[in-house]
Amino acid sequence: MTTDYKFEGWMGLDPSSAEGNMVWKEYEPKPWEETDVDIKVTHSGICGSDLHMLRSGWGPAPYPVVVGHEIVGIAVRVGSQAEGNIKVGDLVGVGAQSDSCLGRDGHACGACSSRAENYCPGGVQTYGSRHRNGGPSYGGHALYHRCPSHFVIKIPAGLAPEAAAPMLCGGVTVYSPLKHFGAGPGKRVGVVGVGGLGHFAVLFAKALGADEVVGISRKADKRKDALDLGCDEYIATDDDEDWATKNARRFDLIIGTASSTKMPFNQYLNLLDLDGTLVQVGAPEGPIPLQIMAVGPARRRVASSAIGSPKEIYEMFQLAADKQIKPWIEKRPMKDANAAMVDMEAGKPRFRYVLVN
Amino acid sequence: MTTDYKFEGWMGLDPSSAEGNMVWKEYEPKPWEETDVDIKVTHSGICGSDLHMLRSGWGPAPYPVVVGHEIVGIAVRVGSQAEGNIKVGDLVGVGAQSDSCLGRDGHACGACSSRAENYCPGGVQTYGSRHRNGGPSYGGHALYHRCPSHFVIKIPAGLAPEAAAPMLCGGVTVYSPLKHFGAGPGKRVGVVGVGGLGHFAVLFAKALGADEVVGISRKADKRKDALDLGCDEYIATDDDEDWATKNARRFDLIIGTASSTKMPFNQYLNLLDLDGTLVQVGAPEGPIPLQIMAVGPARRRVASSAIGSPKEIYEMFQLAADKQIKPWIEKRPMKDANAAMVDMEAGKPRFRYVLVN
Repeated sequence: MTTDYKFEGWMGLDPSSAEGNMVWKEYEPKPWEETDVDIKVTHSGICGSDLHMLRSGWGPAPYPVVVGHEIVGIAVRVGSQAEGNIKVGDLVGVGAQSDSCLGRDGHACGACSSRAENYCPGGVQTYGSRHRNGGPSYGGHALYHRCPSHFVIKIPAGLAPEAAAPMLCGGVTVYSPLKHFGAGPGKRVGVVGVGGLGHFAVLFAKALGADEVVGISRKADKRKDALDLGCDEYIATDDDEDWATKNARRFDLIIGTASSTKMPFNQYLNLLDLDGTLVQVGAPEGPIPLQIMAVGPARRRVASSAIGSPKEIYEMFQLAADKQIKPWIEKRPMKDANAAMVDMEAGKPRFRYVLVN
Repeated sequence: MTTDYKFEGWMGLDPSSAEGNMVWKEYEPKPWEETDVDIKVTHSGICGSDLHMLRSGWGPAPYPVVVGHEIVGIAVRVGSQAEGNIKVGDLVGVGAQSDSCLGRDGHACGACSSRAENYCPGGVQTYGSRHRNGGPSYGGHALYHRCPSHFVIKIPAGLAPEAAAPMLCGGVTVYSPLKHFGAGPGKRVGVVGVGGLGHFAVLFAKALGADEVVGISRKADKRKDALDLGCDEYIATDDDEDWATKNARRFDLIIGTASSTKMPFNQYLNLLDLDGTLVQVGAPEGPIPLQIMAVGPARRRVASSAIGSPKEIYEMFQLAADKQIKPWIEKRPMKDANAAMVDMEAGKPRFRYVLVN
């Protein structure tokens, strides 16, 4: 069977593509398998990772690349062996991961067997990677997308596609650790960084029922945004005097979304109460100087977390639909992807861009 | 009531005391309270902290200081309001902590109310500190020791006093995180550093029933010691080729007892399986450069831990008595404390010195 649609989208051909120089081109997706789903893309969120990949910031990119891993659209072709009861016409999403071993490599995989596929050492990323059948993985800033069905998540009724899109990477990157590390009633949560990831952390921590959610960033001028998002309080580390001592042992959980290696990381740790955890999801470009003496006196922990599993993405969607969570997004036409990338690099979105076909 | 015994011991008067220049002197202990216990010291373990305190290595020491916080002896006076059913003549021990708020400061303390007194922000250290009644805290390299009864632990039958002594700080510093972070059947445990703390970690991890206990140190020449202690295997990071990749995701828990800031910390992290924890109890003098990318891909954690609670010390003693755990110690006469300190500084003990009166 051949398809009556063509795969075409925004391709990065070299590092300059990150500077607004992606080109619209047709391409061949991964060879079809009966476990796959083809999706007509309606919305595709822009993630910071897109820029890193385009400019080879995390190592050489396998050009040509099509970025975009917050993909929402309509299932237009569903393989005969597809999972998840997906029907042609369903509204579905794909996040940053497209495949994992799922036990197909002849040995049990602890991550896949515990439905934490995002920690499978054999994971396939949605773009800039290779599928198990050898085909390239191309992302969602495009017209169509092909993905193994295990990683295609149905979007529940009541959740708008433009809201679902940026949750698929940005949202679940903070939802997953919030859930895993116990954010909910009785817990006090701090969120470092009020931006793309941080704003989701505030929304989800509130939706999960945390007793207190406090935004933490450098400057006092983010206070209004933080409170408008639903923060109970806001700490400006550059501007609030004695913030570290005044808030010592205040939190059970901190989600760290900032990524500067110069952030006051060890002072954040001192904000944790006994057995508290700081989950650093922001990915600094270099090492963070960790003072063990900031960890030990309250048996604190530094953790990290990588995106989320299909199960967690679905749970997050259901929570968002039930609680009518409204992420702060700005829609941009797909044709303006290059301009949107440039604006993204300049830090302009409040707080995520979603490309719309 | 006055006592018919005198408090005298090895005093450090200035930083040179760490170089074998402690002087034997009489001193006035903390003013007696009816919650106290006086102990005739029989054994006093030497801990690395003793040297740090004597030479003002962790900040200016409040000279004169009497160090030693692995104290075993006979209760010779028990206050009328003492806790723990201690009788005159009992064999008892005192570790690195002598007091905590225990809710006496007018507000609930989460640490004390959960019997994790070692994390009370109002803790009193066994030496170089001030008791709540204003008296100085003097340690155990001495003839007698006075301590609030809540922190005096009875030593169970079947555990030799010279074995109990070094467990009171060195032992419980690793027993506590092993227990808290789940070392036991089904768990694979790595121990970085085969020395004072590390050798206890191996002994206790085996006694707790861990599936596998692997010693990790720099040089191959520690392999025999590690295996003699009970390690199932040994990894020499300077000498074993590809040790980091060969052992990737091998452990559920790693106890880090090394303290060089140059240790391959991020490579140790890669040895952890999904949701594994590295508990760093060695206290490096500077920050450790932490790569968040070494933590995230398996939702790993870096934790630390500070000594142990009275409850944990008692549990550890009972385990040691039940399993007939034999720490590797060398006895030295109390009169030779200065020489023992010099040898300790030179890294000579295999693996702990215990001063004997």
